[in-house]
Amino acid sequence: MPDNVVTAEKLQERLAANAFNAWMGLEILSLDEDSIEIGLKWREEMISNPKARWTHGGILGALVDVAADFMIAAKIGAPAPTVDMRVDYHRAATPGDLKAVGRIVRLGNTVSTASAEVFDAEGRLIASGRGVYLTAPPKS
Amino acid sequence: MPDNVVTAEKLQERLAANAFNAWMGLEILSLDEDSIEIGLKWREEMISNPKARWTHGGILGALVDVAADFMIAAKIGAPAPTVDMRVDYHRAATPGDLKAVGRIVRLGNTVSTASAEVFDAEGRLIASGRGVYLTAPPKS
Amino acid sequence: MPDNVVTAEKLQERLAANAFNAWMGLEILSLDEDSIEIGLKWREEMISNPKARWTHGGILGALVDVAADFMIAAKIGAPAPTVDMRVDYHRAATPGDLKAVGRIVRLGNTVSTASAEVFDAEGRLIASGRGVYLTAPPKS
Amino acid sequence: MPDNVVTAEKLQERLAANAFNAWMGLEILSLDEDSIEIGLKWREEMISNPKARWTHGGILGALVDVAADFMIAAKIGAPAPTVDMRVDYHRAATPGDLKAVGRIVRLGNTVSTASAEVFDAEGRLIASGRGVYLTAPPKS
Repeated sequence: MPDNVVTAEKLQERLAANAFNAWMGLEILSLDEDSIEIGLKWREEMISNPKARWTHGGILGALVDVAADFMIAAKIGAPAPTVDMRVDYHRAATPGDLKAVGRIVRLGNTVSTASAEVFDAEGRLIASGRGVYLTAPPKS
Repeated sequence: MPDNVVTAEKLQERLAANAFNAWMGLEILSLDEDSIEIGLKWREEMISNPKARWTHGGILGALVDVAADFMIAAKIGAPAPTVDMRVDYHRAATPGDLKAVGRIVRLGNTVSTASAEVFDAEGRLIASGRGVYLTAPPKS
Repeated sequence: MPDNVVTAEKLQERLAANAFNAWMGLEILSLDEDSIEIGLKWREEMISNPKARWTHGGILGALVDVAADFMIAAKIGAPAPTVDMRVDYHRAATPGDLKAVGRIVRLGNTVSTASAEVFDAEGRLIASGRGVYLTAPPKS
Repeated sequence: MPDNVVTAEKLQERLAANAFNAWMGLEILSLDEDSIEIGLKWREEMISNPKARWTHGGILGALVDVAADFMIAAKIGAPAPTVDMRVDYHRAATPGDLKAVGRIVRLGNTVSTASAEVFDAEGRLIASGRGVYLTAPPKS
């Protein structure tokens, strides 16, 4: 596994410049060679079922994608467009901040795979998944 | 394929009661026995890359999930929690409203599969995917 | 969608030269601009559960992958390595030949997406899925 | 995580009774509370590309599915039909025996998620993936 080529501060700037990531209150909590932790600030508009007050699966999916993608960005120093993504939903998320941990599965020249897990404030696994990201410039 | 057991009006009420779906401006455009069309109202906070102004992949994923899920809801008359979901990203979505078309792949007693395609205002395929949904009450 | 650049006969040669595809008895049944049909010759070694005599899910997955991949090969004229694949299992397959229909979801310069459905001899949908394929030479 | 309720010996019997698993020469190499290791005996018929002599992706997918599924079987003591599966291909597998390591992602009452990684004889990661398995009897 190559070393990270971008600092957490630099990645945080990119995260904050992204309007939807900013809306989700995403913040890089930690970054080392193996993993990135990204926090999400819960907000009322993230609720799906109004009675059960679960967090919308689309928010959990977005968080999986961002955490996986930013771990790849830490290794390659450039944004890596998502090719495809899978999310598994393990437990309903009740109102509260969330945390995602992203890890590299395999860095490649053309495409790369990374995974992420989403935890609630009590540390329970809420969702997990993986994505494939484009790590080469499209053929011209 | 069984007949729909819920009207578009009833599904629209459920859609609107869902805070994140409401935030995305989701609206049922049409519903027949084979497919559901759901419109998304673009908003500035949906942007990912600030220069390219692409719509965030998390929004596209949420839209795939909702369109697939609501087609199942039309057939079974009850919300169907997402078990897992896959989204493929085909083209960057530039600012503008989107439309998703959801279809049943297979209705089952315990779990069911549905798919969805997301189109931009020019009718180009932006993303597509499929999900598995729980169509039975969890074992007590 | 571009025209096919390879004939069914040429694709059949490639299929037959592939040892595992030959073991599965794969044969191109038809090919047009929109879809490819590939037949599978059932054999006793494909059984998973010995009492129920269901066909192994790995065989169904392989068939989804090959049908999707060969539809892409028909369009680009070259093998396209699988990046990732998803298979949904809809119904147990009892002993008997199978047929898969592959279709393009999106042809891209670097990666492409295709889907496939697997049917049993009675025409029932047994499994379906989609994969992403590399349609550009790896970065040197 | 609950304790295993089946021994490796018992699981090995089930593995061997499964015709396609037997054809792949699958064998349980180890089993503890966290993971299962399953070996695959390479055979000439597993080759895809005849020149490059890579192992067919369908074989790698089948191995991911079996390793994930058998880790679930170790926890619940019963076969768990695959609902859906994803495989990511990381590297071409050259001729030689393979090993898969299966792990639980989340055990649930109705459906459960497990993952698996496939390694070649040199210990390189060849493929990885995850599946959702039915861990409840279908609704009657």
